[in-house]
Amino acid sequence: MTAGLLSSITSPQRLKELEPEQLDGLATEIREFLVDRVARLGGHLGPNLGVVELTIALHRIFDSPENRIVFDIGHQAYVHKLFTGRQEEFGSLRKASGLSGYPLRAESEHDHVENSHASTALSYADGLDKARRVLGETDETVVAVIGDGALTGGLAWEAMNNLGSDTGRVVVVLNDNCRSYGPTVGGLAEHLAELRAGTHHGPNLFEDLGFAYSGPVDGHDIAATERALRHAAELHSPTVVHCVTEKGRGYSHAENDVADRMHGIGPIDPEAGTPLAASAPNWTKTYGAELTKLAEERPELVAVTAAMLRPVGLLEFAERFPERVFDVGIAEQHAVTSAAGLAMGGLHPVVSLYATFLNRAVDQIMMDVALHRLPVTFVLDRAGITGPDGPSHHGMWDLALLGTVPEVRVAAPRDATRLRELLREAVSTQDGPTALRFPKGSVGADVPALNRMDGLDILFRSRSQPLDVLLVSTGTLAGPVVEAANALSEQGIGVTVVDPRWLLPVSPTLVHLSSRHRLVLTVEDGVRNGGVGAALAQSCTEEHVATPVHNLGLPRSFVDQGDRGGILADNGLNADAIAEHARALHDELGNRNQTRLEGTSH
Amino acid sequence: MTAGLLSSITSPQRLKELEPEQLDGLATEIREFLVDRVARLGGHLGPNLGVVELTIALHRIFDSPENRIVFDIGHQAYVHKLFTGRQEEFGSLRKASGLSGYPLRAESEHDHVENSHASTALSYADGLDKARRVLGETDETVVAVIGDGALTGGLAWEAMNNLGSDTGRVVVVLNDNCRSYGPTVGGLAEHLAELRAGTHHGPNLFEDLGFAYSGPVDGHDIAATERALRHAAELHSPTVVHCVTEKGRGYSHAENDVADRMHGIGPIDPEAGTPLAASAPNWTKTYGAELTKLAEERPELVAVTAAMLRPVGLLEFAERFPERVFDVGIAEQHAVTSAAGLAMGGLHPVVSLYATFLNRAVDQIMMDVALHRLPVTFVLDRAGITGPDGPSHHGMWDLALLGTVPEVRVAAPRDATRLRELLREAVSTQDGPTALRFPKGSVGADVPALNRMDGLDILFRSRSQPLDVLLVSTGTLAGPVVEAANALSEQGIGVTVVDPRWLLPVSPTLVHLSSRHRLVLTVEDGVRNGGVGAALAQSCTEEHVATPVHNLGLPRSFVDQGDRGGILADNGLNADAIAEHARALHDELGNRNQTRLEGTSH
Repeated sequence: MTAGLLSSITSPQRLKELEPEQLDGLATEIREFLVDRVARLGGHLGPNLGVVELTIALHRIFDSPENRIVFDIGHQAYVHKLFTGRQEEFGSLRKASGLSGYPLRAESEHDHVENSHASTALSYADGLDKARRVLGETDETVVAVIGDGALTGGLAWEAMNNLGSDTGRVVVVLNDNCRSYGPTVGGLAEHLAELRAGTHHGPNLFEDLGFAYSGPVDGHDIAATERALRHAAELHSPTVVHCVTEKGRGYSHAENDVADRMHGIGPIDPEAGTPLAASAPNWTKTYGAELTKLAEERPELVAVTAAMLRPVGLLEFAERFPERVFDVGIAEQHAVTSAAGLAMGGLHPVVSLYATFLNRAVDQIMMDVALHRLPVTFVLDRAGITGPDGPSHHGMWDLALLGTVPEVRVAAPRDATRLRELLREAVSTQDGPTALRFPKGSVGADVPALNRMDGLDILFRSRSQPLDVLLVSTGTLAGPVVEAANALSEQGIGVTVVDPRWLLPVSPTLVHLSSRHRLVLTVEDGVRNGGVGAALAQSCTEEHVATPVHNLGLPRSFVDQGDRGGILADNGLNADAIAEHARALHDELGNRNQTRLEGTSH
Repeated sequence: MTAGLLSSITSPQRLKELEPEQLDGLATEIREFLVDRVARLGGHLGPNLGVVELTIALHRIFDSPENRIVFDIGHQAYVHKLFTGRQEEFGSLRKASGLSGYPLRAESEHDHVENSHASTALSYADGLDKARRVLGETDETVVAVIGDGALTGGLAWEAMNNLGSDTGRVVVVLNDNCRSYGPTVGGLAEHLAELRAGTHHGPNLFEDLGFAYSGPVDGHDIAATERALRHAAELHSPTVVHCVTEKGRGYSHAENDVADRMHGIGPIDPEAGTPLAASAPNWTKTYGAELTKLAEERPELVAVTAAMLRPVGLLEFAERFPERVFDVGIAEQHAVTSAAGLAMGGLHPVVSLYATFLNRAVDQIMMDVALHRLPVTFVLDRAGITGPDGPSHHGMWDLALLGTVPEVRVAAPRDATRLRELLREAVSTQDGPTALRFPKGSVGADVPALNRMDGLDILFRSRSQPLDVLLVSTGTLAGPVVEAANALSEQGIGVTVVDPRWLLPVSPTLVHLSSRHRLVLTVEDGVRNGGVGAALAQSCTEEHVATPVHNLGLPRSFVDQGDRGGILADNGLNADAIAEHARALHDELGNRNQTRLEGTSH
C-alpha cells in the first residue's frame, strides 16, 4: 500500500530517496489527489494527469532549484507543486490569496516563470543558460518542459534556432501528448508522429537545428524517462528528450473526453465527470451560435482560431462549415497575418482569441491588417477580469492596445442582443478591421436601451432636469452602471447612462453628450491608462469641451487571481463603488464652483 | 548591346517576350540603373542587387498579378517595380508623395503587402491560398519570396507549420543570401549551409514539415532559376525553392562591405562607394559608445540584438565584449524573452531594437519581463518619425504601447548628455524594466536645464510672473519647444518648459507643476492616443487638478513617407506650430474665463 506516501514527499530530496518500485504507487496516489482536489476546486486537470511520471523523473534526476526546471505555460506544474512543499495549501488553489494555478516565485524557490502564455520556456532557458556561461557557473543545467502544442508557437522556433547551434547545455523536455488544447496541427505534428512511429529516417528536425535527440520515450515509464533525462544531463550540449505522454492519463472521464481531455475544468462530480454547476447561456456559446448563423448568410465569412476551437466557441461552426474554419496551432501571430491573407483573397475572416492573447499579435494587427485596411474581425473572449487564472490571464490590455492601432473599430456588447447586433455590424464592415470583446461567463439578461442616438444607446436618464453626471458604460458593466445611476438619481443627482457600443474610435456624439453634462465618469473593465475613458477625455479636450472626464478602470499594474466579482469590487467597478465615486466627484464639483464663485466676487 | 532594353520592359509581359540570351544583359543594365539611382537617392541597395536575376525569373514564370508574388519585408522589390511600370517614377523614390521603397498597392496591381516588417510573407501566402480554395479558384499560384534571415522569425515558423502539411500550392522562394542584416545566425543557418554544400543527407527541415524541396539553385543563373520555379509551379503542392544569391552582387563596394553589404544607404558617391554627407555624431553611435563604457564598469551588463548589431550601434560593444553580446536573429520575441532569462540568471540585459519593432514583442515585454519585475533595459532607436521608409517604419507606437505595460519606466533623452545620464540610470534600475527611446539621425547640441526638480528638468521659465502655460517637452522635441516658449514669452505669455526625462510613469511632481499653470500643452513624437500627454492628463484628472492638459502628437492613423522635418511640421510638432497652438489655447482660455465671469455676473 502506498497510502500516505505522497504526504511524506515534502521536498524533491525526499522523492530522490524513494525506491524505484515505490514510484508507480506514488503516481497512483498523486492522480487520486489531483482528481479529488481539481474536481472540487476547478483547475487544469488533463495536463497535470499527463505529467505525473514525468515530473517524478524530473525531480529525481535534476537538483531543483540549482538546476532550474522551467515549465512552459505552467498549468502542468501541479505535481511539481506537490513535491516542493505545497500539498497543504492545495485547498486554496486558484482562490484569492490562495495557491496559484501556475508556478509563482512568491510561493517557492523552485518556481521561476509565472507568465502562463505558451512557447516561452525555451527562450527563458536560453537566457538562463547564457547567463550561466557569462557568470562562469559551470555546473547548472537548465531544463525546459514544453508541450508539442507550444512548439507550434513562433517564439519556440526562435529559441530552438538559437539553442540548437549554441554551446549551451539546455535540456528540452518535449512533453508530446499530441495536443494543444485540441489535437496539435501542422507539419510539426506530422513529423512528431513519424518520430513516435519510428518511420522517420535520417536526422530529424531537432537534429537539423543542432540538437542532440533522445527518444521517443514513454513518459509514463518512470525508469525509462529517468534514463533518458540522465543521459541528456550528461551530454552537456543542447538536447531534446522526446517524451510521449497521454493528457488526462488515468482518469477515464478525461481520457474519454476526445475534444479536450478535460484540459481546464470548473468543479465537477469526480465519479460522473460532469460539471456541478448548470451551464447557463454564456458569451462563448452565444457568439459561436451567432457566427454560425451569419456564416449561413455570408459565404465569405471564415473563422480562424489559434488552437482553441472549442474554448472560443467555434465547434458548431466547424461542424457546419469544416472547410471554412482554420485552426493554425498555438500561433496567434499567424492567426492574424494569415487572416490578413484571407481578407486580401476576398474573404471576411473572424479571428477568435482570448483577449490576453491579443497581446501576442499587436504588430500583426497593426502592420499586416490595419495598415492594409483589411476587413478582419477580431473576437476577444475572456476580456477584462477573468478570475482564477491570475495576472497573465486577465484580458485587461486589449482596449488600450487596440486604441493605438489605426483604423480598427472596437465594440463591447453589453448583452446577448448587442453581441448579435455588433457582430453583424462587424462582419459587414468592408473598409478595415473591427474587434469585439466580451468577458468569460454567463451572458445575463438584456439591458434594454431607452433610445439610440447615432449608434449610442442611452440606458438611463434621470427625470430631474439638470444634466449633472454622464456615466459612460462599456460592455457588461452596463448592469452595475445603471444600478449606480438609479442610486444617484434617488439622491437627487441628474444622471445619464450611455453605452457607446462602438468604443473606438470615440464617437463625436459622445463628445457632444459629454459637453452637455457637468461631469463625465467612464467605466471600463480594462487598464485606465490608454483606455477608452482616456480616449474620450482626450477627444473632449481636443474639441474644447471643458467637462471633466474621469476614468474608472484597472490600474497600470498586474492584478492577482480571485473571483471576478471581488476583483471588480476591489477596483471600484461594482454598482456601489461607481455610485460612490460619481457622487464624490459631483459633490466636489459643487464645492469647487462654489469656491470659484466666491473667489470671483472678491 | 543591351542599352535601352530595360526601358522597353513596361510590363511583365514584355519581359516574357525577351529571348533567354538577352537576360544577362538586362540584368547588367538593371544593376547600373539601381546603383545610379540608389547612390543618388539613398535606399536599399544590397538586397536589390541580390535579386536581379531572381526577379527576372519570377516574372517570366509566374503571371502577375493573377499569381500573386508576395515579397517578405519588401525592401527587395525595386526590380519588381522596374518591371511593373514604375521606371519613370524612380527619381522620386522614398520622397514625400514619391515612389515607396516597398511594395504599395496604390502604386500597382502587382503589389500586395506593404508592411516592411519581416517574416510575414508565408502567412499572407497561407491566407491567400486558403482563400483561393474556399472561393474555388483553382488556377492561381501564390508565391512568397522570403530571405533566410526572415525565416529565423517565429511568424515564419508558424506559417511553415501550417503550409507544409496543407493541401495548398504555395511556392516559397527562399532567397538564401546567408544574411539577415549581418550574417544569419543559428541552427537554421547551419542547416542551410549544409544544404548549400550538399553535405546533408536524408530529408531536410522543409521536407520534415511536409514541403517539397527543390534546390539549391544558383539564384544568379536565370535559366536554372526559371527551371526550378517552373517545376515548383507544376507540382501544385507546397514547395520550397531554395535559391542561393549574393547580397550586393555586382557592385564591388557592396560586395566588399562585409558587415552590411550596403543593406540600406543614404546618398553615396557611386564610384567611391562613400557617403556624400559627412557623418555627424548620431544617436546610435553615442549610445553604442556609452553602453560599451558602462559595460567596462558593470560586468553584469550584456547586450541583445535581433539581427541588427550594426544598425543599433553595438559593433563597438561586440568587439570589446564578444562574449557579452547576443545576436538572436530576426526574432524580437526571443530577444525579449531570452533577455528575461538573462536577467533571471543574474545579468542586466540591454535589448536594442528599432522602435517600430517593439510592436512585435509586446506580450513578451509584458508577461515575460514586466510581470516578473526583471531588470531589463530596452533601448529604442529610430523612435518617432523616421522619414523615408514610410508608415511601418515610423517608431510612433512605442510610448503608447509601453504605457499599457505595468512596471516599466520609460525615458526619452533630449540630447547626448541626457542619453548618457538616463542610460546609466536605466542600467542601474534593479526592480523592473526600463526603456529609453531616441530618434534616427544626428544628436545636435545639448539643451541645458535651468534646474532640476525631483528628476524633472526645467528648460525655460518666462521672467513674467503669471504661470500661464506649461509646455511639457519629450525627448528631442526640446529644441522646438524651447524655441516656441521664447516666442510665446516675447508675446507676453508666461511659459514654463519642462522635460520630465522619465516620461512614464507620470511623475507626481509633473502633476503638481501642472496644477500651478493655467494650461498645459504636451508635445510628443508619438501617437497622441494613449501617449505620454494622455497619461499626464489622466493623472491630473485623478488628482483633481483642473488645469486643462492638451496633447500635441501624431494622429491615430498611419503616416506616409517623407522627410522627418516635413512630417513633424505637418503634424504641428515644429516650433512655429507649437507656439501657435499654445497661443490659441491661451487666448481661448482668456476668452472663456471672461465669458464665465460675465456669466457669473448676471
